[in-house]
Amino acid sequence: MDQPLAGIRVVDLTRILSGPFCSMLLGDLGADVIKVESPGLGDHVRGLGAGVEGMSWYFASFNRNKRSMTLDLKSDAGKAVLRRLLADADVLVENYRPGVLAAMGFDRAALDAINPRLVVGSVNGYGSTGPYRDRPAFDFITQAMSGFMSVNGSQESGPMRAAPPLTDLIAGLYAAFAIVAALRVRDRDGEGQAVEASMMGGMMSMLAYLSAAQLATGKTPAPTGNDHPIASPYGLFRAADGHVAVAPSTAPTLRRFLDAIGLIGLLDEPRFATNADRVANRAALNALIDDAMCHETQEVWIARLNAAGVPCGRVQTLGEVFADPQVAAQEMVLDVPHPGHGTVRMTGFPMKFAKTPSQVRHPAPDLGQDTEAVLAEAGYDAADIARLRADGVV
Amino acid sequence: MDQPLAGIRVVDLTRILSGPFCSMLLGDLGADVIKVESPGLGDHVRGLGAGVEGMSWYFASFNRNKRSMTLDLKSDAGKAVLRRLLADADVLVENYRPGVLAAMGFDRAALDAINPRLVVGSVNGYGSTGPYRDRPAFDFITQAMSGFMSVNGSQESGPMRAAPPLTDLIAGLYAAFAIVAALRVRDRDGEGQAVEASMMGGMMSMLAYLSAAQLATGKTPAPTGNDHPIASPYGLFRAADGHVAVAPSTAPTLRRFLDAIGLIGLLDEPRFATNADRVANRAALNALIDDAMCHETQEVWIARLNAAGVPCGRVQTLGEVFADPQVAAQEMVLDVPHPGHGTVRMTGFPMKFAKTPSQVRHPAPDLGQDTEAVLAEAGYDAADIARLRADGVV
Repeated sequence: MDQPLAGIRVVDLTRILSGPFCSMLLGDLGADVIKVESPGLGDHVRGLGAGVEGMSWYFASFNRNKRSMTLDLKSDAGKAVLRRLLADADVLVENYRPGVLAAMGFDRAALDAINPRLVVGSVNGYGSTGPYRDRPAFDFITQAMSGFMSVNGSQESGPMRAAPPLTDLIAGLYAAFAIVAALRVRDRDGEGQAVEASMMGGMMSMLAYLSAAQLATGKTPAPTGNDHPIASPYGLFRAADGHVAVAPSTAPTLRRFLDAIGLIGLLDEPRFATNADRVANRAALNALIDDAMCHETQEVWIARLNAAGVPCGRVQTLGEVFADPQVAAQEMVLDVPHPGHGTVRMTGFPMKFAKTPSQVRHPAPDLGQDTEAVLAEAGYDAADIARLRADGVV
Repeated sequence: MDQPLAGIRVVDLTRILSGPFCSMLLGDLGADVIKVESPGLGDHVRGLGAGVEGMSWYFASFNRNKRSMTLDLKSDAGKAVLRRLLADADVLVENYRPGVLAAMGFDRAALDAINPRLVVGSVNGYGSTGPYRDRPAFDFITQAMSGFMSVNGSQESGPMRAAPPLTDLIAGLYAAFAIVAALRVRDRDGEGQAVEASMMGGMMSMLAYLSAAQLATGKTPAPTGNDHPIASPYGLFRAADGHVAVAPSTAPTLRRFLDAIGLIGLLDEPRFATNADRVANRAALNALIDDAMCHETQEVWIARLNAAGVPCGRVQTLGEVFADPQVAAQEMVLDVPHPGHGTVRMTGFPMKFAKTPSQVRHPAPDLGQDTEAVLAEAGYDAADIARLRADGVV
């Protein structure tokens, strides 16, 4: 069976991270993604991060399953080429600031005139309406504005950003999802539409019970570090060779945990009898648990507690993650040959399909490597292509 | 135009968070989601978090756009009802541990026999293959195992979980996306399939350039708190009434930032001339920026810097977020009437569709409120329903 987006052509005007992650997810689902880049320069990320044999692994890991063509979208001739590409495309993806695409001559009316079946997916910082729509966005800023930073970290650390660029990635993921949902509408009803996701809105959707608590009580949640605000014990405990993360999420799990570490008797003490007691006396309880666990290794505890049905694990470094047998079994690290650039290792596919699995159909492209092929598919002949090349349009 | 999943029926066996977030996203796209809950008890989250007028706002905000029926899936009679529901359904969603659904009598062969067009979406901790498949999962643990905690936080704080249950939500989001993609395959080819997303795999996919750096260099990234590992200036700076987050992401943006705060001359000093110099002398540079900004308010700086095209903003508390005019303009906070429970405020829709917008078609259901309606739709008559009720099956 073909992949979900087999036969779908995506014209991809995105750059950096949020948009390229979106279009990569579409490529991973089988779409033909044409990455449109500036002649001579290309996506800024080509020059970022550690490179091996002339290939940025950061670029490679967010641009697999795409082709690359160059096109000068500032020129009228370049815009004419884009119009021709869009006439035959299913999806346009962009992560300009709101209004920029329209200013380039591609507002919704223009796009409808070119191709009423086109799904236009946008990823932006704050959304395309509202007082902040024109603000420049950046992951760190939308982490701050969304409320995420105010709860991440501890009282001691103060507001803390998450290290990965979560708002870029979450917005890109929602945008890709919205595009596929809009394709289903188009398959059924024949009409394209505009869809979008913002970095601030996406991050807000991930605040879960913290938002619910704020809205229900009017009380602003404080950062609680690795402590669960309303459950104890919970957190990092000391084994002989490092910490073990333990989260006994229910009363039966808690009993199994305390039993496994020889402390089941604590539940008979008034200071630890109820969850409220244990939250109030968290420091004393944590110290007793550390004392009970510090004589055995992480490996021993993790085997023993998992066997008892207690959620637990290690704080793995990224080096440990990519050497983890579970990660290998789940194919969450891939070795991808890149002709001319050696073999690039990258994160695998987070969505698993029993009958239509994702695969790396092609590695991240060199800048403009598919320009001529894409132009030929759009009906340009060799003379046209030579002229576009001579004029610096591609 | 109808919503993307209009006419799609989802039988939802999920509980707590990762699965209910997945099925809520499907409901937000227009699916008819039937939440199947244990008679008498229901989803554990009904009793969690702050409640108002008998409704947990945490439950309400993750179970909108669903109906609820009770069904005892431990009984043979309950399983027979489930089989009948699945015969007419499009999607089954579950977040049991891998293997549990099969042990209940619903392995893939059994499901195929019931309905070969069924898409079966699973959300789990580590994936349904590999050495950890049977481990109990919990957000805190998969944050630790995925590598996320090792880079979140600072050198001083040590490994730090993110406050929100990100791994639940990201896995639920990927699972919903995979389900819609699998529906597109089924629309085209007529066959359902199993799809899944794991909490550990989903979180790994969000590590972005940190993973790329690890894989390319073999060096494990250290947590860097609010500092960008390879860019300076970047971070939280002191205005008269609190911090301003500033991320001058490019050389021109940096010039505009320093110009706006009267420090453009710093770029002529050897210690601040290049990005590498500025990273090396980050503390001195940050102190000078604090001195330059501390005489004006956050509001003044945010207006001035945004006008200059410099990404900036405040660290908003959740109370401030829900009062933010941008959040209102984007309808990212909703007032939803819940008959019998007052009006519940909750986070809005992160995906925006120009022609098929999401809406709250019905608020979170009371336990079992739709049991009889769903049974009647499945062909049970009043006497059948009375007998199921008397036998405690529903």
